[in-house]
Amino acid sequence: MLKNIPSIVSPDLLKILMEMGHGDEIVISDGNFPAAAMAQRLVRLDGHGVPDILEAILALMPLDIYVEEPVALMEVVKGDSYVPEIWDTYKKIIEEKEGQKKIAHEERFAFYERAKKAYAVVATGETSLYANIILKKGVVV
Amino acid sequence: MLKNIPSIVSPDLLKILMEMGHGDEIVISDGNFPAAAMAQRLVRLDGHGVPDILEAILALMPLDIYVEEPVALMEVVKGDSYVPEIWDTYKKIIEEKEGQKKIAHEERFAFYERAKKAYAVVATGETSLYANIILKKGVVV
Amino acid sequence: MLKNIPSIVSPDLLKILMEMGHGDEIVISDGNFPAAAMAQRLVRLDGHGVPDILEAILALMPLDIYVEEPVALMEVVKGDSYVPEIWDTYKKIIEEKEGQKKIAHEERFAFYERAKKAYAVVATGETSLYANIILKKGVVV
Amino acid sequence: MLKNIPSIVSPDLLKILMEMGHGDEIVISDGNFPAAAMAQRLVRLDGHGVPDILEAILALMPLDIYVEEPVALMEVVKGDSYVPEIWDTYKKIIEEKEGQKKIAHEERFAFYERAKKAYAVVATGETSLYANIILKKGVVV
Amino acid sequence: MLKNIPSIVSPDLLKILMEMGHGDEIVISDGNFPAAAMAQRLVRLDGHGVPDILEAILALMPLDIYVEEPVALMEVVKGDSYVPEIWDTYKKIIEEKEGQKKIAHEERFAFYERAKKAYAVVATGETSLYANIILKKGVVV
Amino acid sequence: MLKNIPSIVSPDLLKILMEMGHGDEIVISDGNFPAAAMAQRLVRLDGHGVPDILEAILALMPLDIYVEEPVALMEVVKGDSYVPEIWDTYKKIIEEKEGQKKIAHEERFAFYERAKKAYAVVATGETSLYANIILKKGVVV
Amino acid sequence: MLKNIPSIVSPDLLKILMEMGHGDEIVISDGNFPAAAMAQRLVRLDGHGVPDILEAILALMPLDIYVEEPVALMEVVKGDSYVPEIWDTYKKIIEEKEGQKKIAHEERFAFYERAKKAYAVVATGETSLYANIILKKGVVV
Amino acid sequence: MLKNIPSIVSPDLLKILMEMGHGDEIVISDGNFPAAAMAQRLVRLDGHGVPDILEAILALMPLDIYVEEPVALMEVVKGDSYVPEIWDTYKKIIEEKEGQKKIAHEERFAFYERAKKAYAVVATGETSLYANIILKKGVVV
Amino acid sequence: MLKNIPSIVSPDLLKILMEMGHGDEIVISDGNFPAAAMAQRLVRLDGHGVPDILEAILALMPLDIYVEEPVALMEVVKGDSYVPEIWDTYKKIIEEKEGQKKIAHEERFAFYERAKKAYAVVATGETSLYANIILKKGVVV
Amino acid sequence: MLKNIPSIVSPDLLKILMEMGHGDEIVISDGNFPAAAMAQRLVRLDGHGVPDILEAILALMPLDIYVEEPVALMEVVKGDSYVPEIWDTYKKIIEEKEGQKKIAHEERFAFYERAKKAYAVVATGETSLYANIILKKGVVV
Repeated sequence: MLKNIPSIVSPDLLKILMEMGHGDEIVISDGNFPAAAMAQRLVRLDGHGVPDILEAILALMPLDIYVEEPVALMEVVKGDSYVPEIWDTYKKIIEEKEGQKKIAHEERFAFYERAKKAYAVVATGETSLYANIILKKGVVV
Repeated sequence: MLKNIPSIVSPDLLKILMEMGHGDEIVISDGNFPAAAMAQRLVRLDGHGVPDILEAILALMPLDIYVEEPVALMEVVKGDSYVPEIWDTYKKIIEEKEGQKKIAHEERFAFYERAKKAYAVVATGETSLYANIILKKGVVV
Repeated sequence: MLKNIPSIVSPDLLKILMEMGHGDEIVISDGNFPAAAMAQRLVRLDGHGVPDILEAILALMPLDIYVEEPVALMEVVKGDSYVPEIWDTYKKIIEEKEGQKKIAHEERFAFYERAKKAYAVVATGETSLYANIILKKGVVV
Repeated sequence: MLKNIPSIVSPDLLKILMEMGHGDEIVISDGNFPAAAMAQRLVRLDGHGVPDILEAILALMPLDIYVEEPVALMEVVKGDSYVPEIWDTYKKIIEEKEGQKKIAHEERFAFYERAKKAYAVVATGETSLYANIILKKGVVV
Repeated sequence: MLKNIPSIVSPDLLKILMEMGHGDEIVISDGNFPAAAMAQRLVRLDGHGVPDILEAILALMPLDIYVEEPVALMEVVKGDSYVPEIWDTYKKIIEEKEGQKKIAHEERFAFYERAKKAYAVVATGETSLYANIILKKGVVV
Repeated sequence: MLKNIPSIVSPDLLKILMEMGHGDEIVISDGNFPAAAMAQRLVRLDGHGVPDILEAILALMPLDIYVEEPVALMEVVKGDSYVPEIWDTYKKIIEEKEGQKKIAHEERFAFYERAKKAYAVVATGETSLYANIILKKGVVV
Repeated sequence: MLKNIPSIVSPDLLKILMEMGHGDEIVISDGNFPAAAMAQRLVRLDGHGVPDILEAILALMPLDIYVEEPVALMEVVKGDSYVPEIWDTYKKIIEEKEGQKKIAHEERFAFYERAKKAYAVVATGETSLYANIILKKGVVV
Repeated sequence: MLKNIPSIVSPDLLKILMEMGHGDEIVISDGNFPAAAMAQRLVRLDGHGVPDILEAILALMPLDIYVEEPVALMEVVKGDSYVPEIWDTYKKIIEEKEGQKKIAHEERFAFYERAKKAYAVVATGETSLYANIILKKGVVV
Repeated sequence: MLKNIPSIVSPDLLKILMEMGHGDEIVISDGNFPAAAMAQRLVRLDGHGVPDILEAILALMPLDIYVEEPVALMEVVKGDSYVPEIWDTYKKIIEEKEGQKKIAHEERFAFYERAKKAYAVVATGETSLYANIILKKGVVV
Repeated sequence: MLKNIPSIVSPDLLKILMEMGHGDEIVISDGNFPAAAMAQRLVRLDGHGVPDILEAILALMPLDIYVEEPVALMEVVKGDSYVPEIWDTYKKIIEEKEGQKKIAHEERFAFYERAKKAYAVVATGETSLYANIILKKGVVV
């Protein structure tokens, strides 16, 4: 533990966030995401929900302002009536930390392809469905 | 050994099952399957038959309900008169644990290609022929 | 995630608990414990308190009944007036899961020596002081 | 799988048995033995009992005739009334394969020290207590 | 060394033969074959000829009966008048162990491509030319 | 780079500071210190002086208040008339960040022994002599 | 540290510069460059600006005279009004060390592709934007 | 050092020459060749010229007689007036050891592509330009 | 394979012989020696007898003339009536290659201790008993 | 190769020299020294004599002035009449580069013990006997 670093951020996650540069992406994935199969670098934060981690990451890392949609969510699969209410929480956290941002919605398998290219995936224990989120890192000035 | 975990499940297999996410596949292969040549992650359970392992895995891991056929078997090669009676055992175990499921039948070399992409292969000592089975993991709620 | 496994238990922790045998010890350490310097095998569960992990571990692993004190705590350093109230929580969890147990109290540096010999150390984000606890695994029957 | 090799013998175990020389020891341990903590080389055969493995190993490897007691068992801990009936099974298998042999009985912690020096430990799922056994390899002529 | 295992078979080769499944191929290469450049898994048996190794391998591993030609040799390069008399020895060994088999003849560079995909290559000190041989493993029943 | 983390702190150093616990020590060494020979974990920050790094570390990590002297310097070797003026800079930085602290002075080879046991050594390009400093991490509350 | 080697050059960087041959490229990247994601070999020099490193590298390594433009910069993204004044500093350093050179300007994503093929990337803490620079090594005579 | 092995041949180079088979290629590169970037296996012989190494290698390894040109040199780049006199030395050494051989001349970037596929590259300190040479190993009888 | 190197010498063995210096020892062990348990560096030459290897090694490596007994054999265990006739073969080979040498005889467990300190152990398939031999390398001039 | 770095210094040697600090030792060993058996870090410079390397190292690294004898040689073994004339060359090189220095003479096995503790050993092809030399690095100012 260190002063002023949220204790939910593990040493590996902190190192990874610091190594990332402008345009690199990180996925915070829910508990059902095939994270180990897809991650180039995997950070496990079992037992935590996504919102706490999202908040901790955005306290350290800005979003990219060189693209229109620096955030992406996984679209609900056609025919599935599930409503991912957790997205509202995400929007509030993002607005609080980084101001209002446009959010992309990627179809499930397109989301997978993008996750495979991301710099890292954080695997959580989030039980909400469709709770995966991609963040694109911005410039630190 | 742990409370309530079948002792046939090795620590590595348990870790792998836990790491798998929605849509990831695991192959339980018979004793003649070229498992080491194909597996991205290999778990050996020499000396065991497939049914005991199938039962132990389904006690821990649900099948995918987002696809029609969350289970696949290797088709008997044309010209081979062998009747894989073990399939009936598989169907009973699956029905008991997960309810009735549709099962895909993959041609031998198509089955190989799918096995190469699976998250893991469990190599057993099963002496029945055509006894390989692929399971697609579902959502844990 | 798997059926009936608490989601706070990471794949690595589960594997380690399963590999442990009769008499092996595991340390659940608080956020200030020098875990990385001492652990033979380190599992990080940043951002969690000790009680949740203690409860999850005792749901899977019995305590040793071949010794009088299968649990150990770190003694408060002389001159320090801190009262570790979290110990009461530990006692309740242990009693609930395994019945009443005698608990050893190790002086700080003796505790360190024992931690270095333990099979594994789980590093948490627990903010209470003196909140480290050692569990000795019993026989699974 | 190979012709004339019992299918319970894994590729790693076979390699290890073959690498061992005159006087090297191998431990077949029960499911509660702290095998991972002690083994210089660990072979897991989860879900199997010790007798099947003992039989398979003795079909491949002779016992040492340069010592009086080429086999050792773990003594029952004082105060424990458990009677390890499995020892009779061991004696029958040994007699069948290698003729009658004298067997040493090591106190629990002395057994641990010897296991740490053994060439390998085979971890099984044997549920009988005190079912650990050490074999000293003889000369192959 | 073990009972009933030919002493020319190294621990690594035995492990590899055991790991191979139905349809996997192994190359026994002569002393001039670029084995290290091509092998996915390399076993060196320097100083031995191919026939002794061929005999030892066929004592442990059956050939594939699901293909017409479970054995392949490297064709003599056009313009080269060399007559590989060692092939007669191979045929005798194969017939003795597995019955008469059809043998494929691969052009030099096609043979190389197949060797690169083989499960393993055994490098020998065989001084005969064109003495490389590929074996396809069959089903062990 | 991240918000609010001094850019002189490398990802590895940040990870190491975070992994350290109560009582773990870190050495910031000058450019002539045999850091690579002694460090259990080595972080290179070539081209930087010690004061900037000291300041950055103390912004993240508190000193230990359970010992009298949480800081140590390397004593000037007998017969050497060098006066390490950089120590005054160190004292100012420490006082600013953590309040006044007692500082131990270790004889050269005793300092080496302590450095070998430290959790990590940061190698700098500091050209002042006797500019090595050991910090003992305190409790983060 | 060594005689006549600038102390900002780390042992790894020096080794890498020495290993490079005619035509190999090295990227000195600013603090926002996604260096870890792209580098085949990564050298971190956190907390330093690019000019000091550029100067130190050109003191050791000549530029390629077999191409017209042995240096490349990242073009300002269209729509961005930022003026990278640091380029003037680069030009002065290059002229001083190697004489006047033509400099290529690569579009952002083309620059990334070239960086991925470079022999190494040096990650700095440079806070100027568009401050990344590629150097192509020349012949040492 | 060994009897009758030239002392310029390092243990790694000797091992590599021995592992190579018929048709495998080795590059002896001059001091400006980008050897580390291209080599599948790199042997450094810093401070030596190419001719001594060429002579030592040809004392141990025959050239391929199944191809017309078992040796290749890097063509002088168009517009460069340099005359690589060292080639005459090469020709004398080759003629002495293996008889007269036809030599291929590869354009610079074609030479690079071939070097990348070679079994190994020997990096020397040769200061002559265009002094790189590729040797194709023949059959040892 | 290389010119003038006996084909029984594997690439690894040749590399090891070359790396050894004055006073380093190598063990050529028989098929029952616990080579894998004791060797700091293990070279397997399964299926070969010791005399061929002894002859090949002495063709490359001189014995030490700075000690009285540069060769050692394992003494027959008391009570064992076995007569190791292979020793005569060893003496003839040594005399032929290096002239007459005094030979030490080490008690079995003393031999083991010396083998553990040797630079390397060559494991053979030699079936004679007490056929292990230690060679101390001399100066190459 | 780099400007102003002698081409006999390999990238690994340069990195090692740079990593060494005040008081660290490096051995330059002759061709018969058991370098691989003793070195904590081994740099091979096969085919070179010691004097060229000594000269190149002293051009980069100062000797320690905090000890009386910053250089050590291996004493001639009692009874050996060999006169190591190369020592005169060493003395000249040292005097030229660093001024006159006192030189320690270590008995053969004491020299070995010191070599084992040295930061690195450079293995050369030097054919003179007793040509090993230890250098203690000084402070770079």
